[in-house]
Amino acid sequence: MASFNFYDPIQDDISDVEILMRSQMDGYHSDLEKAFNLILSSGGKRVRTALTLLTGKMLGCEIQKLHSLAAAIEMLHTATLVHDDLIDGSFLRRGIPTLNSQWSAGATVLTGDFIFAQAAKLASDAENIDVMKVFSQTLGIIVNGEVSQLFSSHCLASREDYYRRIYAKTASLFETSTRSPAILAHSSPETTERLRSFGLYLGMGFQMVDDILDFTGEQATLGKPVGSDLRQGIITLPAIYYIENHSSDPDVINLISNHCLEDEQQTNRLIDAIRNSNAINYAYQEVYQKLDESLDNLKSFPDSIEKTALEGLARYLTKRDS
Amino acid sequence: MASFNFYDPIQDDISDVEILMRSQMDGYHSDLEKAFNLILSSGGKRVRTALTLLTGKMLGCEIQKLHSLAAAIEMLHTATLVHDDLIDGSFLRRGIPTLNSQWSAGATVLTGDFIFAQAAKLASDAENIDVMKVFSQTLGIIVNGEVSQLFSSHCLASREDYYRRIYAKTASLFETSTRSPAILAHSSPETTERLRSFGLYLGMGFQMVDDILDFTGEQATLGKPVGSDLRQGIITLPAIYYIENHSSDPDVINLISNHCLEDEQQTNRLIDAIRNSNAINYAYQEVYQKLDESLDNLKSFPDSIEKTALEGLARYLTKRDS
Repeated sequence: MASFNFYDPIQDDISDVEILMRSQMDGYHSDLEKAFNLILSSGGKRVRTALTLLTGKMLGCEIQKLHSLAAAIEMLHTATLVHDDLIDGSFLRRGIPTLNSQWSAGATVLTGDFIFAQAAKLASDAENIDVMKVFSQTLGIIVNGEVSQLFSSHCLASREDYYRRIYAKTASLFETSTRSPAILAHSSPETTERLRSFGLYLGMGFQMVDDILDFTGEQATLGKPVGSDLRQGIITLPAIYYIENHSSDPDVINLISNHCLEDEQQTNRLIDAIRNSNAINYAYQEVYQKLDESLDNLKSFPDSIEKTALEGLARYLTKRDS
Repeated sequence: MASFNFYDPIQDDISDVEILMRSQMDGYHSDLEKAFNLILSSGGKRVRTALTLLTGKMLGCEIQKLHSLAAAIEMLHTATLVHDDLIDGSFLRRGIPTLNSQWSAGATVLTGDFIFAQAAKLASDAENIDVMKVFSQTLGIIVNGEVSQLFSSHCLASREDYYRRIYAKTASLFETSTRSPAILAHSSPETTERLRSFGLYLGMGFQMVDDILDFTGEQATLGKPVGSDLRQGIITLPAIYYIENHSSDPDVINLISNHCLEDEQQTNRLIDAIRNSNAINYAYQEVYQKLDESLDNLKSFPDSIEKTALEGLARYLTKRDS
């Protein structure tokens, strides 16, 4: 449990946020409540909740408003997952059946919508119109990113596309998790900007690690086949490094010119090659660079248990805690 | 065009709101923009926009904020329609192909989500946290109503269920269209309550008329079969009156005891019976009662072109303008 001690300063707050989230279903249709509790119970480390709470407590935010904000951000994340799983046709998330594996598409769409609505309500309970603006902009960025991915040609190996995608998918909400407590605390523009950058770079690094693990992990741990991104035609950081450094590999030439993978044999060959190449190391170096850029933004804050916990959480999320 | 003169005091505002709505897609994925423009161009009388603008101008709201609010409400309505059509599998709305008839389910879900996000952003541009709270609560009420309908036993003939359903489906957003300008104008609680009631009763009456037309209209005008609600097992006001007054009709007895319609023959017989019964008149009497309850709330306001237009719009929407 050593690696989990960054949750210590917010143990009670996390419980309060959990209760607050579940109470959003009170008085609404019982199936909505059941579905939502199922989703909340299916795990997740409440990373965004922790970032919001630790940042807000470090800045001395009013605690009730901070709890509303943290719950709003976690629920926004949850709602996007519900619609994502439906769109991808995923039947499992973290090894647990998804909502759409048990419910009709219609019920799943509406459950996601309802969680959006309650997330927006919680965000408004933070009683700060600028927080509300950031919150709705973030939702727009996340959804626009998903639309772009849905409509984009597959097997695009551009770094810019990759960074844009992981910003929309992950880093934008990390950024909001650390920026909006600063807005709530009426921090100076410089402080707000620093905390925004802290969350932004951390989010980029966190998603990069996820993309690396998709290659280096084992199927049993991942709960999905190794290289599942590439199998869906999604080019992530390890593949980008491999492509950049192996331009004469016939599979790479093929991928670049055809904008797709030919068959499963070719895909498996490429995944194996990436796993065993230095691309993994290069990708990790980029993660550590993002972590450094992230942590730099915390340096000027006075020491506190929350600051220490934020640094520990950042290292943990980018696999730099050991 | 005589019946349309209640749009006169807000002609320019409606154009501005239209431009504001379309500009929400600037900088986002071009397919999102195309889809959204398609939806906006497919008609609709912008009833909610008109209610918001007329109420807000009557109260002297700051005009830019009022436009943001009106655009937010119309876009919230649009987003719910996009998801509704997908869930119902509708391929036409107002005779024009729906988004889901041309796009994948995933793209349709995301387009709806994106419109929600931009609606929330516009609502936050009204710079009033209480407006934001009402806005997100309304989204929750609408979606909860849809979930209830999706999970409810069919052919429920309870008046309470009917009123609850049309409140969630229609009257709640009408209520928000007239209540939130009052909040924006910092009106007294009494004034705000009066305007809320004006929109609420008008919305109830408006949906009742829609439900009556589903029986009395012709297929060509309706763009769907006559009695389409009943065909889907949804009991609306004319059917409720018919059931209450024809308890010995074998088709009614059958409907009540089986909670469903047996076959198309029986359904057609029942639809014909309702069309030709006094249930239609009774239902219209209830609409006019709702209109009176609605208009009563405007009486205490000083005369203005906006007040006159609101009264005209209310009569028009409840078919009392002729």
